[in-house]
Amino acid sequence: MGQTLGQQFKITFAGESHGPGYTVIIEGYPSNRIFDKELIQKELDLRKPGQSEFTTSRNEEDSFEVHSGVFEGKTTGAPITLFIPNKGQQSKDYSKIKDLARPGHADQPLFEKFGIRDYRGGGWSSARMSATWVAAGALAQEFLKEHGVQIISYTQSIGELSQIDLDYEEIKNIEWDHELYTPKGDVCQKMKEIIKQTKDVGDSIGGQCRIVAFGVPKNLGAPFGDSIKSKIAQYFFAGPAITALEFGSGVHAARLKGSEHNDTFLAEGGYQTNHHGGIQAGMTTGEPIDLLVTLKAPSSISKEQMLLNQKTQELESVSIEGRHDPCVVPRYCAVGKALLAMALADSLIARSR
Amino acid sequence: MGQTLGQQFKITFAGESHGPGYTVIIEGYPSNRIFDKELIQKELDLRKPGQSEFTTSRNEEDSFEVHSGVFEGKTTGAPITLFIPNKGQQSKDYSKIKDLARPGHADQPLFEKFGIRDYRGGGWSSARMSATWVAAGALAQEFLKEHGVQIISYTQSIGELSQIDLDYEEIKNIEWDHELYTPKGDVCQKMKEIIKQTKDVGDSIGGQCRIVAFGVPKNLGAPFGDSIKSKIAQYFFAGPAITALEFGSGVHAARLKGSEHNDTFLAEGGYQTNHHGGIQAGMTTGEPIDLLVTLKAPSSISKEQMLLNQKTQELESVSIEGRHDPCVVPRYCAVGKALLAMALADSLIARSR
Amino acid sequence: MGQTLGQQFKITFAGESHGPGYTVIIEGYPSNRIFDKELIQKELDLRKPGQSEFTTSRNEEDSFEVHSGVFEGKTTGAPITLFIPNKGQQSKDYSKIKDLARPGHADQPLFEKFGIRDYRGGGWSSARMSATWVAAGALAQEFLKEHGVQIISYTQSIGELSQIDLDYEEIKNIEWDHELYTPKGDVCQKMKEIIKQTKDVGDSIGGQCRIVAFGVPKNLGAPFGDSIKSKIAQYFFAGPAITALEFGSGVHAARLKGSEHNDTFLAEGGYQTNHHGGIQAGMTTGEPIDLLVTLKAPSSISKEQMLLNQKTQELESVSIEGRHDPCVVPRYCAVGKALLAMALADSLIARSR
Amino acid sequence: MGQTLGQQFKITFAGESHGPGYTVIIEGYPSNRIFDKELIQKELDLRKPGQSEFTTSRNEEDSFEVHSGVFEGKTTGAPITLFIPNKGQQSKDYSKIKDLARPGHADQPLFEKFGIRDYRGGGWSSARMSATWVAAGALAQEFLKEHGVQIISYTQSIGELSQIDLDYEEIKNIEWDHELYTPKGDVCQKMKEIIKQTKDVGDSIGGQCRIVAFGVPKNLGAPFGDSIKSKIAQYFFAGPAITALEFGSGVHAARLKGSEHNDTFLAEGGYQTNHHGGIQAGMTTGEPIDLLVTLKAPSSISKEQMLLNQKTQELESVSIEGRHDPCVVPRYCAVGKALLAMALADSLIARSR
Repeated sequence: MGQTLGQQFKITFAGESHGPGYTVIIEGYPSNRIFDKELIQKELDLRKPGQSEFTTSRNEEDSFEVHSGVFEGKTTGAPITLFIPNKGQQSKDYSKIKDLARPGHADQPLFEKFGIRDYRGGGWSSARMSATWVAAGALAQEFLKEHGVQIISYTQSIGELSQIDLDYEEIKNIEWDHELYTPKGDVCQKMKEIIKQTKDVGDSIGGQCRIVAFGVPKNLGAPFGDSIKSKIAQYFFAGPAITALEFGSGVHAARLKGSEHNDTFLAEGGYQTNHHGGIQAGMTTGEPIDLLVTLKAPSSISKEQMLLNQKTQELESVSIEGRHDPCVVPRYCAVGKALLAMALADSLIARSR
Repeated sequence: MGQTLGQQFKITFAGESHGPGYTVIIEGYPSNRIFDKELIQKELDLRKPGQSEFTTSRNEEDSFEVHSGVFEGKTTGAPITLFIPNKGQQSKDYSKIKDLARPGHADQPLFEKFGIRDYRGGGWSSARMSATWVAAGALAQEFLKEHGVQIISYTQSIGELSQIDLDYEEIKNIEWDHELYTPKGDVCQKMKEIIKQTKDVGDSIGGQCRIVAFGVPKNLGAPFGDSIKSKIAQYFFAGPAITALEFGSGVHAARLKGSEHNDTFLAEGGYQTNHHGGIQAGMTTGEPIDLLVTLKAPSSISKEQMLLNQKTQELESVSIEGRHDPCVVPRYCAVGKALLAMALADSLIARSR
Repeated sequence: MGQTLGQQFKITFAGESHGPGYTVIIEGYPSNRIFDKELIQKELDLRKPGQSEFTTSRNEEDSFEVHSGVFEGKTTGAPITLFIPNKGQQSKDYSKIKDLARPGHADQPLFEKFGIRDYRGGGWSSARMSATWVAAGALAQEFLKEHGVQIISYTQSIGELSQIDLDYEEIKNIEWDHELYTPKGDVCQKMKEIIKQTKDVGDSIGGQCRIVAFGVPKNLGAPFGDSIKSKIAQYFFAGPAITALEFGSGVHAARLKGSEHNDTFLAEGGYQTNHHGGIQAGMTTGEPIDLLVTLKAPSSISKEQMLLNQKTQELESVSIEGRHDPCVVPRYCAVGKALLAMALADSLIARSR
Repeated sequence: MGQTLGQQFKITFAGESHGPGYTVIIEGYPSNRIFDKELIQKELDLRKPGQSEFTTSRNEEDSFEVHSGVFEGKTTGAPITLFIPNKGQQSKDYSKIKDLARPGHADQPLFEKFGIRDYRGGGWSSARMSATWVAAGALAQEFLKEHGVQIISYTQSIGELSQIDLDYEEIKNIEWDHELYTPKGDVCQKMKEIIKQTKDVGDSIGGQCRIVAFGVPKNLGAPFGDSIKSKIAQYFFAGPAITALEFGSGVHAARLKGSEHNDTFLAEGGYQTNHHGGIQAGMTTGEPIDLLVTLKAPSSISKEQMLLNQKTQELESVSIEGRHDPCVVPRYCAVGKALLAMALADSLIARSR
């Protein structure tokens, strides 16, 4: 797939965290639709860092330019090119780690594979690439709205702290904390505390993000290679930091009997339960698609750790000062929505032509 | 992708559980290699049901015919076509459920999507399709062996029962039970008991399979769309029954700090730990690739449950007698190996040309 | 693409001229359609050799078996697998050319690329592979008929002899010679004579096949990568023996002025002329798609010629006795129809879901 | 394929003739290579209009910016993004044809397909898109040079005027006219006259471009779907204006006997002749790849012609003043080189990893 996700709603993306900016070319979006820059900007703002003390204090201003596909405010059917310029990146920050590979980063794998390394931030392999996905995902969500699909995502857990599982009505109606994208309340407060403590000691922390799509039309996908689960998994694991993906009952399914796990039909249509997470035999069932994503703690920490000198092959104990993001889960809520939206749009758009 | 997995080591597969048989066309396998039928048969035998009292007592004889790609015992570079005839399937078994959709099966989604249903077993959407993967995966494993790669899989958990995590030396050396593909010992005994009990009451049970690839060359894959994680996930979720996929630290990563999760470099090469499961920034690191797959309990149970009459749209309480597989995990060990082998071969084979 | 053509109406094919047979897996054909074996057989019969003195006298009996995708006489939406067994091939014919590469054949390129050679006929690289295309193309034509598309092909020229260009009404109504698939008459008679003379001296001859699709819906395709011309060209040049492909005015376009070549609009819709061959800017216009294919003379001749001994690297003057096809154009009429039908079905089928 | 050509050397392109500019994302180019902006600029200059009185007098300044993939003057293995800004386009030129569809252009097909039209020039469907191909093709040619491949293209014919076929030594050594990219001499002079005359009456003219690749490694490609001919054809017919593509003997092959067309082996390797144009059974033979492309006359003419009013559906006789290109063949020489270079790089690059 390379720098591409999707075939019918297809995006191709490129850029580096400290280059001129990020480009995404979007194919397959319907023509003759109003192109709403605000909606894309709104999604980009959800993802962008520097918004609260719980995320990185780097200030990435994620505005964007339209380089093709829109004429007089409407989409023309031509490929849509968006360009997100990099602003406020400070390349000089990175000169001191020019020859040093950081653990958990792409520094060493990229250097070994390509024999050269763009040492400004993660270079090519920066989480900032996901800004292109969020921009394209905003369009995908617009398209899905035409078909009655709504996607909601939230922070399910941070470190040891976990929200109780919300049922679908709660997900639609609960009051969210707008810094952590998690239900307001005690757990949320504790999450904020643990993030602060982690940040204070120059460390970072993992967590989980739940993403639910409501109103998904039936019969998208097929068994085996065209399985909607296969497609969604392909999209999500294209992103950095993800260590586990669960559908419906997820890891808990291991403990269930068939008589418990089989979702019983309702005579009026639909199912009593949704252990299958909205997908059976690779096809959507009309029930909500229900994902749980586990994200590792960000690799960038300022705590002292051993870095590998790529020239000398020796280890050096280094503390990398900087504005690191202590927890990526809240910002990932925007990314996860975008990825699921694009995967669904890729299946649904073929049907709508 | 449809009925295809892979691009460089590419398979295209088709068949139905009660049709004449299954076909798989394999492209990209190196030429001028001895084609060892025994090796493929051996892997097929690991997957086939009816081998012990812990699996289905259906007797699927998975022999196969070679329809192209092999000349005088060697591969020619031409596509290799294998045909696995169906034997011993009894179509008449299924006439009584002609109009009845079973929960957890593809019966209802396929009927809604295609307006017609092959009611013999799961028709197209039968787990028996994975026999084609196992056959092709045997060839992939042969190719990987040339490059020093070895894949081992085992039953990690069944229901509530879980083996302790084995370290990599143990995985290579422990004594396996040849019915459950799990370390011999108390846990294994208890697993057998729980399977028997489950089977006796006409129910089924879920579990987890761990799959580890040793000796994987560095630098396969790339960030984002060509991520090895993305590819592996795409392959695994193309299979039925899988509800969760974890790499390395998996769901546990949510609880770890960055300073804990970051795998520390060793000056002599490699890493102290393998939380990343052998893949960083989408690229293989040379550490073992380490997967954990959660499988739901088989949907086919003989316990009485509510089926949907597709003609009347009414629910009927039915007990489907038959030789159901109470737990798919042991047989899945062969499938998981095959899927991982094919995903790795797909990346490695391009490099070897 | 490998052994695959298409994405929405997708075929994957494999086989060898002297192996057990040919396999084709067809994906994307609509479900719940009557599967008419006769129609497929009829197209296969058009392609098969041994039908007249003007083609090879080899008797390839191209019957076929259905291995998946059809249940109780109807398509189920599952992939359709057809198997065309080889009958009457005589492998022993080829033992004498075991180490000899024939000019114009794949013998030498395949041996150099793969280090091994299936010396029975062309092995993998046999024109007989096109039987799988004809079978799949028969289904594609069935699908196209639902949308009002009809494809007609005929022998335009053989050697120096050429039919005058038929206009579209003539193509639909003219009386065809059923051995050469060319309009009956003097030119046809002369074509037969030239083929006989060529055959008598153990030689072969080239020619041209015209293929026209009537009733093609507008707006299939898109500019650039999704151009219908690009897709059709990809399909046709996947076949052996083709040396030139022309759309509409073809090579003659070089001589025309813009004011002559521009097809003038008709106020009532459509165009006065069809220099563009039914495709403008990569999109179908509703006018007939109009192709001209040039085919080289079959490489297999019994006339004495120099063969390359792959062991000694010396040339040997050899006369290969056998039942060679003196001219492939008449049989290609079936292949060309199939290729165009599949290319169009691949575009149209997405729209019909 | 959409806006993409290639898989291993893969480009994705977008833009409009009167938007902000054109974008191309290039994947697969080797890392750690000097990125030579001059070389790309030189190829762009060959394609750009306004260079002589024989082409359009529009002055498209095709400079470009690098948006990703290059760090400190070298390629990093990351995708390379080039942006070619539009300069000097005058959108107001087109306001008068806002509702008028020009024959031979995409105006009417795009409007019918997408229900909206970017009436500035051809909008999306502008030949100016090929600037992105030329830029990417310059990189492809750089890569091919590492492997000893050189591509030369020239104007073979314009209207009725045709150069005699050059042999391969002449192609490498003949003196070219730098306005028409054709051998200097009488034919060249007559070509210039015919272009001038055509331009003076507001008309345009077609022609043919020959493209030859020397030094191509053997064994690229495979029979059938991976045929190098199929790939090259797919690339070339993705471009506008092409009406015929010929390999080697091309349309002339129809007239040849097998004993004439079969390229005879040389004992020392290679072939006596090259009727197959460097490709046999889909694989490169080491002989030059030899293409002939026929291009229709540019559709844009200032001569009065009938345009279709898309609002009223009535025809209007209009003369579109403007700086039209009377013949595209000379500029296409750059495009043809780029397309062949990219197609070959796509095959060769996989082998070089």
